Amino acid sequence: MSVTASAPGKVILFGEHAVVYGEPAIAGAIDRRIYVSVERRSDGEVRISSSDEIEDGYPYVKRAAELTFDYLGERCGLDIKVESEFPPASGLGSSAAVSVSTVLAISTLLGREVERKDVARLGHMVEKKVQGAASITDSSVTTFGGVLFIKPKLEVVEAIDAGNIPLVVGYTGKTGSTKELVEGVRTLREADPEIVDSIIHSIGRIAVRAKGVLERGGDIGGLMNINHGLLESLGVGTEELSRYVYAARKAGASGAKITGAGGGGCMVAYAPENQRAVAKAIEDEGGLPFIVSIEKEGARIETG
Amino acid sequence: MSVTASAPGKVILFGEHAVVYGEPAIAGAIDRRIYVSVERRSDGEVRISSSDEIEDGYPYVKRAAELTFDYLGERCGLDIKVESEFPPASGLGSSAAVSVSTVLAISTLLGREVERKDVARLGHMVEKKVQGAASITDSSVTTFGGVLFIKPKLEVVEAIDAGNIPLVVGYTGKTGSTKELVEGVRTLREADPEIVDSIIHSIGRIAVRAKGVLERGGDIGGLMNINHGLLESLGVGTEELSRYVYAARKAGASGAKITGAGGGGCMVAYAPENQRAVAKAIEDEGGLPFIVSIEKEGARIETG
Repeated sequence: MSVTASAPGKVILFGEHAVVYGEPAIAGAIDRRIYVSVERRSDGEVRISSSDEIEDGYPYVKRAAELTFDYLGERCGLDIKVESEFPPASGLGSSAAVSVSTVLAISTLLGREVERKDVARLGHMVEKKVQGAASITDSSVTTFGGVLFIKPKLEVVEAIDAGNIPLVVGYTGKTGSTKELVEGVRTLREADPEIVDSIIHSIGRIAVRAKGVLERGGDIGGLMNINHGLLESLGVGTEELSRYVYAARKAGASGAKITGAGGGGCMVAYAPENQRAVAKAIEDEGGLPFIVSIEKEGARIETG
Repeated sequence: MSVTASAPGKVILFGEHAVVYGEPAIAGAIDRRIYVSVERRSDGEVRISSSDEIEDGYPYVKRAAELTFDYLGERCGLDIKVESEFPPASGLGSSAAVSVSTVLAISTLLGREVERKDVARLGHMVEKKVQGAASITDSSVTTFGGVLFIKPKLEVVEAIDAGNIPLVVGYTGKTGSTKELVEGVRTLREADPEIVDSIIHSIGRIAVRAKGVLERGGDIGGLMNINHGLLESLGVGTEELSRYVYAARKAGASGAKITGAGGGGCMVAYAPENQRAVAKAIEDEGGLPFIVSIEKEGARIETG
């Protein structure tokens, strides 16, 4: 018997980097998934394979299997297959999605039901083990789906009842090192604490404002633009991201910003009227565009 | 007899836009000047001519002549010739420089000595009359030269004893409407007062910090980069300015930012080690680069 679980990628709409300093953030699951299929092996070994180039994800899969076995007090040999609908190491949350999918797939294969909050918690633990540190953002979003308001100080997330959010993601094809970028902001803050703290706090205020705008189905473009400039001021922008952002706005997006850690990775545009034109503009600048919507459903077992 | 007066252009190093809301700013005179030559005409008329394409400056020259006549209680016919070492309407302070040069040239021709602070004040009045509104920044910098710390709330300027500041200005060839850009920030502020006020205040804090760095001959690049992001967040950036800024940094500038109102106009890079490489990088992006230094001398009478 084979079990397949999947979990969505994510975009951070507001608050990246500031969330590290306790400010709230908003992240949304996107309608691109990672699929993890598991099947018992009789020899007790755990083998991981993939049809995509997502070897980066293997340490997460391996660690997720170990933690799940520990959590359930039960283990077995496994063939694990991983497939992804979005590029790994692009800042779209592939690590959390693959971790959570693995937890869900293995526990289901073993006939055990694990509560959602525990799936998220295990996914978060996997990320922490592999990376050394991780926020609860990615594991929460990929587990629960939808749009979440993250309050890092309280380690809680709150679902935002947002309408459709038509987005275009633009991928640079490059991976920014989250660790180095977070370190860069920390160094900047140590040099100029008053100025940088004030910028970080402004980013938090934007997230709070954006929550209200999303709840009434309003246009978050303007707030994204402000947030983008603040990310630039923290030094996590790149020339490419900036070009895609301007191209997206010119093509009619009402707002665009870096999403995730920056230094490469992705930008995201809010394009209620012309996702295709915005995607084309990003492509013309050399980026890889994804037209995405918010995915309401989080981690799930695939049937059939 | 002919009298020639000149006055330097300027770059705003820190604080543009925020200065409108009472935050301090730092501006420096640059080693590019506008020259105004005056000669009596017997027919009582005032005629303005120029070898450059700076007709934009004529209303300033005309108004400056009128205000100077009023101030001195004396008038005469004049041939006024204007020449410029930098492009007009580029955000480099041509309006103030031409106004102040005209005041100084005419008063000198009439054998009257006008105190520096009154030259600056008359220059400021000219700008206000022609534009409807103006800050004291440009008229002060072009009159006094050097680097000035502007405290708009008190309407005072303070000279900063800075060492050499090796700059590269990149001109887009386009003119942003200062009025519209200031209006844009006002609209943004009305929509999100808490967020935008906090950004404006951060810009002011950067100017205060930068004053200290300049006084000890330090590197202002990092603070310029932060200020640039904050200007982006206020919506006054353009795709071109952003490209030049990134190109300048890549070519070795330790910092780069929009200078002036944005929406076109100029950016400025701080390049202590490689002004030429930075200028070339800006040129490669389609910009018109000027390697400039801070000009210690303000408005003056040219002799010989």
